[in-house]
Formats: sequence, C-alpha cells, structure tokens
Amino acid sequence: MAAPAEQLSVVVLGGGTVGTQVVRLLDEQADDLAARVGARLVVTGVGVRDVARERPGIRPELITDDLDGLLDSDPDLVVELMGGIEPARATILRALGGGAAVVTANKALIATDGAALHRAAEQAGVDLYYEAAVAGAIPLLRPLRESLAGDRIRRVLGIVNGTTNYILTQMDATGSSFAEALAAAQQLGYAEADPTADIDGLDAAAKAAILASLAFHTRVTFDDVSVEGIRAVTAEDITAAREMGFDIKLLAIAERIGSNGTTGVCVRVHPTLVPRTHPLAGVRDAFNAVFIEADAAGQVMFYGRGAGGVPTASAVLGDVVAAARNRIAGSTGPRDSSYAELPILPIGSASTGYFVHLRVLDQPGVLASVAGVFAEHGASIRSMTQKGEGDQAELLILTHPGRESDLAATVAGLRRLARVDEVIGVMRVIGEGQ
Amino acid sequence: MAAPAEQLSVVVLGGGTVGTQVVRLLDEQADDLAARVGARLVVTGVGVRDVARERPGIRPELITDDLDGLLDSDPDLVVELMGGIEPARATILRALGGGAAVVTANKALIATDGAALHRAAEQAGVDLYYEAAVAGAIPLLRPLRESLAGDRIRRVLGIVNGTTNYILTQMDATGSSFAEALAAAQQLGYAEADPTADIDGLDAAAKAAILASLAFHTRVTFDDVSVEGIRAVTAEDITAAREMGFDIKLLAIAERIGSNGTTGVCVRVHPTLVPRTHPLAGVRDAFNAVFIEADAAGQVMFYGRGAGGVPTASAVLGDVVAAARNRIAGSTGPRDSSYAELPILPIGSASTGYFVHLRVLDQPGVLASVAGVFAEHGASIRSMTQKGEGDQAELLILTHPGRESDLAATVAGLRRLARVDEVIGVMRVIGEGQ
Repeated sequence: MAAPAEQLSVVVLGGGTVGTQVVRLLDEQADDLAARVGARLVVTGVGVRDVARERPGIRPELITDDLDGLLDSDPDLVVELMGGIEPARATILRALGGGAAVVTANKALIATDGAALHRAAEQAGVDLYYEAAVAGAIPLLRPLRESLAGDRIRRVLGIVNGTTNYILTQMDATGSSFAEALAAAQQLGYAEADPTADIDGLDAAAKAAILASLAFHTRVTFDDVSVEGIRAVTAEDITAAREMGFDIKLLAIAERIGSNGTTGVCVRVHPTLVPRTHPLAGVRDAFNAVFIEADAAGQVMFYGRGAGGVPTASAVLGDVVAAARNRIAGSTGPRDSSYAELPILPIGSASTGYFVHLRVLDQPGVLASVAGVFAEHGASIRSMTQKGEGDQAELLILTHPGRESDLAATVAGLRRLARVDEVIGVMRVIGEGQ
Repeated sequence: MAAPAEQLSVVVLGGGTVGTQVVRLLDEQADDLAARVGARLVVTGVGVRDVARERPGIRPELITDDLDGLLDSDPDLVVELMGGIEPARATILRALGGGAAVVTANKALIATDGAALHRAAEQAGVDLYYEAAVAGAIPLLRPLRESLAGDRIRRVLGIVNGTTNYILTQMDATGSSFAEALAAAQQLGYAEADPTADIDGLDAAAKAAILASLAFHTRVTFDDVSVEGIRAVTAEDITAAREMGFDIKLLAIAERIGSNGTTGVCVRVHPTLVPRTHPLAGVRDAFNAVFIEADAAGQVMFYGRGAGGVPTASAVLGDVVAAARNRIAGSTGPRDSSYAELPILPIGSASTGYFVHLRVLDQPGVLASVAGVFAEHGASIRSMTQKGEGDQAELLILTHPGRESDLAATVAGLRRLARVDEVIGVMRVIGEGQ
C-alpha cells in the first residue's frame, strides 16, 4: 500500500469525548484512511475551551483555545464537535466561507438553522455533512439523501433518543414507574442530571426536524415539530399496552399528508403504541432505529447505537472520509435540496389510531354511552375490551385511524361523561404498516 | 421548480419486472428526479430479448433487441437488468469502455467478475453501481462503502435470501417439514420451481462475496465462499433450537480473522442458531437484514425487502440518481478499492460455537463418554441438556466458540461412540455479539 503523496489538513473543534475519539481514530487508522481517501488526513489542530484540561490521546501541541487562529490556517476540513448554537454557528459559517468542508454532529444547530448553513456551503462550493447528528453511529442520513433519492418517502418513524427508549424498556421489563426508571437511567449514566431535553422529547424533536427535511426536501425546523415527552407515561399505561399486544415507544414521526394540491408535511414526537410484531418494537434499551416507508422500497429500517463517544466518532469519520474524497476529486456531494418546500401541517391534520384507557362505572349502558362519544366525533372503534367489574371496571379502546384533531374532542367528551370515572390514558397508535 | 436545461440519456437493458418498474419510476417521478439530479433523465431505449412480448408501461418505440445499436447511441447511463453472466458481462464492459456509467442488479456477475468490471470502470473514469445486487431495496452497499469508510468492520452477518428465510420462518411457525414449507413457498411464488440457487445457499453466497469485498477491501469471489444450504434442516432441529432459545437462520457470514501478520477474511453461508434476543432473530418471512459489527460504530443493522420488482427498482433508481449527479458534477463516486487484499481463509480457520443434538442410550456413563469426545478435540461445552429417558434420551449440547475445524473431528468422534445412537443435528451458533 503506497502512501499517497497528497495530504489534507483537518481541524477538530471540541475536545470532549467525541472529539478525542475522532482524533484517536484519525491517528490509529491513518494508513487505512489514506488508502480510502487517496490522501493522508493530518490533524493540524484541536480547538478546545479549556487548554489546561488533560486530554489523553491528543498530542498537547495540537491543543489550542484560539479557534480563529485554527480557521486562519486555511484547513481543508473542519470537524465541529463543540455543540450548542453559538459559537458553533459563527465558526461553521466562517469555516465554510473560507472554503473548508465542514463535518458536524450538532443536531440543535442543524435543526434550528440548517437552511442557512446549507446555503453557505452551497455558495462556497464545499460539503456540509452531519451524519452523527441523528441516530449516532447508524449510517442513515446518507442513505436517506442518496440511496432513497429515486424513491418517494411516505413516512419516517424513528426511535432516536436512547435515554427515553432505555427508560421505557426498563418500565416494561421491571414494572417500575417512570420516576424509578429515570433514576435508574441516571445512575447508569444513560440520563443526564437534568434530563429535560431527553424526556420531554426536545432532543428527538431536533432529530425529527432533520429527518423530515431530508426525507421531504422541505425546510423543517425544530419549531415546526409538535412535541410530547414521556413524563406522563405510567406503569399502568405500559401494562395496558402490553395486554393489547403493543409496546410504548417515543417515536419521532415525519409524514407526508394529503394528496394533489394539498400535500404537506407533519412532524411530531410523542409516546406511541407500536405493535409487538413491528420491527421497531424489538429496538430495546439505548438502541436507536429509524423505520422508513417509501413507495417503491417498501419498509426499510436502520438500527444501531444512537449515542456514545466511539459510535458517534465513527459516524463523524465516515463523513470526514466522504468530504475528503470529494475534495480530492474537486467535487462535492449531493446537496440537501429543499426544492419541494411542502407546507408544514399541524399535528391536528395527521391521521392516527388512538388507544383510550378509561375507568368506568360498571353499569348497564356505559358501553353504549362511551361508544356514542366516539361516534359523535367521527372516531371509529376497532376494539373495546372490558377489564374487571364494579368500581374497578376498565375499558381499553382501540380506534381505527382517524383525524388527530378528533382525538382531543373525543377525550374531552369522555371526560364530561358521568359514567366515566377517569381517563387513565390516551395514546396514539401506529399500525402494522402495509 | 424550473426544469433543468441539461438532460442525460438512460438505456435500460432487460425488460423483465425490474426493468419495467425502473422505466415506470423514471417516467412517473421525472420532475422530482430532475430536481434531485440537476438534469432530466430521459430513457432513450429499452433492450429486450423478445420484442414481440407486450410490456405495459413501456412506450413501444423504445423497445428493441438491438443491444449494440443502443450502446452505439452513446448513452450517459446504462442500466443492466438482464441477469446472468453473458451477454451481461460483455455488454457492461462495452458500455463502460464507451464512457457510460453503469448501474446493475446482477449479483452473479459482480460476485464472479466484479474486479474486472471495477477495473474497466476505473480506467474509463465512470461509475459502476450495484446496490440492488444485495438485499434488494435496502440501502446497504452505499453505507458500507461510504458511511462506515472511517471504521474497521469485524464481521458482517446477513439474512440475504428471502426464500430460505420464508421457509425457515414457516417451519418455525407451523412445525412443518422442510419439504412442506418449500412447497408452500413455491405455491406463493416465494420460491422458484427449481429452488436450487436459493435453498442450497448459492444466491446467498454470491451476496456474501459482494459484502465481504466491500467490508474488507479485498477481492472475494463466489468461489471463495464455503456454502451449506438449508435442505438438511429438520423440524426437529427447529424445535430443539427453540427450546434452547434460538432461531435457525441461513446466514451469510463475512469475518475478519486473526491479528497482526496473519489477518485474513473468511466468508461462508450456513444455517446458524441465532439467539432469540438478537436483532436478526426478528427478521421474519421474506425480509432481509444485514447486521454489521464494527470497531467504532458497534452493532448496526439494515432491514428491508430483499426482492420484488418495485423494491429492487427503487435501489436501482437510487444508483441512477447517484451516477447521474456525479456525471453532472464531472466526477465519480468512491471506488471499491481492494487495496487491503487480505488472504481468504478456509472455513476451518473460523471460530464458532456449535450446537450438537444426539440420540443416546440412557446408560450410566454416557454423558461422561460424550463429554470426553468434546474434550479430546478441544471443544469446550457451554451447556448439556438431557431430554427424555431410555431409548428416547436426547442430548442437546452447546459449546463455547472454538475452531471450526474441530467440529468435524468432534462429530466424527461422536459417530464412532457406541452409546450414541444417532447424531440428529449439528449446527453452528452465533453469540449475542458484544
């Protein structure tokens, strides 16, 4: 294997876990990478906030807190792993403007301001890649952007947050409450001390926006996503779901809705009943998966680790190799075109099945009055099961898919019904697919 | 959406199901594709063997049996869907030599002579893509070639033949024999009248060769693959496996073996016990999946439809879009470099766990003598379970991973043992992974 004469300079911004692993992999696999790229990749600097901190595996002379100086050195590739909106945004714009290809794992930034970054990359004629921003190590965005480019995607269903999937898997396996499962996840390091971004679905919403943008060639930002987290999911919900043959998963859903002139995109994150036989039901613990339904390809699923320094570094490195190859070839990869620009539709326009769990007074006529409320709002019942008797009677109701906006109306109607003691839970349901 | 001025000519060779679907999709999604590619894709001819046959959806004036004439027309892209070695091989070489990018679904040809085709593409400076050759609609080869390019792959485990997976799933679900399940699959059109290529593992072996070549940057051909099909799998094997917590799957396995100076690649196809908790166990019916274990990415799985005209056409179209984009940009995609050229190792050098199912005489000392045979050949027993008594006693034995070559020796030793009535089944086992 002859060493290529050419070399490309790589600047890594961010000296955390992922940054350290990226530098390590670039070093350890230098020969392999050189063969794959056709040029040696040389790390010329690692930008960090705190130069005093020890960073084993990174040669000290590479470390600097002078980000401007690093960008002034005119690198071929800039790998942004600082996270957050600023100074990441300004730094990436400066790197692109200076003609560097940029690889980032910054989901918050891409979900908020991806369009501006893409424009800057396009103007400069350089690549902007962010495979690691969604579902960590799973090669997902590139297939979505390239392999399925000749297909028409109908729906994307993603388990894209490992923390919440771990919590829900634990609740299912042990019967524990949400609070107990969260505490266990925090103890194991699967959940942060402040778990808000994960359990309230915000992290998943950022990823949903990115997936939707790529799948539907439409600019979707974080603010376009309807979000409901898993705080309200109870052990009782999980048991009831299991009895009906479902797992509860926090899904990021991006969907093309309507037809002809009224086609739009609806993007949302919420706890969802998934049939046990669906491939997403088998995605347990902190694993991630993205399930895509396309006109021609049918059902396709991508599965793997969603987080962790080394898996994320692997995704970053894949992007680095792609950008480096393009640079050697004097070209760029395909653009994230948002040429379709479909309108963003509110969650109310989506169609979904519902699962409604009620505590009712076991009296003659109660089923009829409950069924009446569903009928009144145009919600069609698929199955109704009674559990227990007397004061403890419960109704487990599954509906056929119907308009999301009818759900609130139906549930409000049920709450007004004297014979309904309590609406124990209301959750959306996805079907088997086709 | 303004129509791009530029256009690219596309010649489709083969007017079967996939060819017809490709032409249909190119036509139906012309505007979308033009926006994605930056040029209109215009089908200028469809080469078929029998021009008399009706082909709904293809304009009759496009159809011709003059393949040479089509290639003489100097097309930008040639889509080869004729299958078989010749004339596909000569035609592709001619197309590449003439400067056309080539997209093919021809797994037999790529597995046999991929290296020569790649050389021809490289010399001509054009793309050669074949996403549809392995696992139909699943975007798999591009991620393997590009997204995981910065990683080091240890092992690829694939369910890459839908027919055999359907048969094994049926045997498991209904308790039917292999012959009954095959007949059912034939009736449903999942298996051909002559099912040899599928059930003897030959189709899977071709795909294993392609996967191994890409994963390990090494030229692996069909002849390098050790193959064992599913003809010998019995209902008894499936029941025994289930009792031990396993599913039986026909796996294509490509593995990097050894370390330092002695690293090589071992590629094989055989029925394998897969733990029920492994993501591959959930791949049922005619679905395909490829599970990849990489140093950095960890475990990654790709799941979807492995066959069918429309799903396969989707994969072909993804390649067409990629090749067309590169053509517009005046570049080519990354090469399938076989720079590593690791030696191909025989199956005997692989390490695997074994499952051995024996009928024994229930006499004192039988366990000891059976265990003795394992010990003699260095095979370490993980669990031994006795079922039944007297004449009907059975032993279900699982071993720890050991050298594949010790398996034959151990089994031969067991057959010579007087107290062993019958070796009911011997099968390889994969572990949970890490």
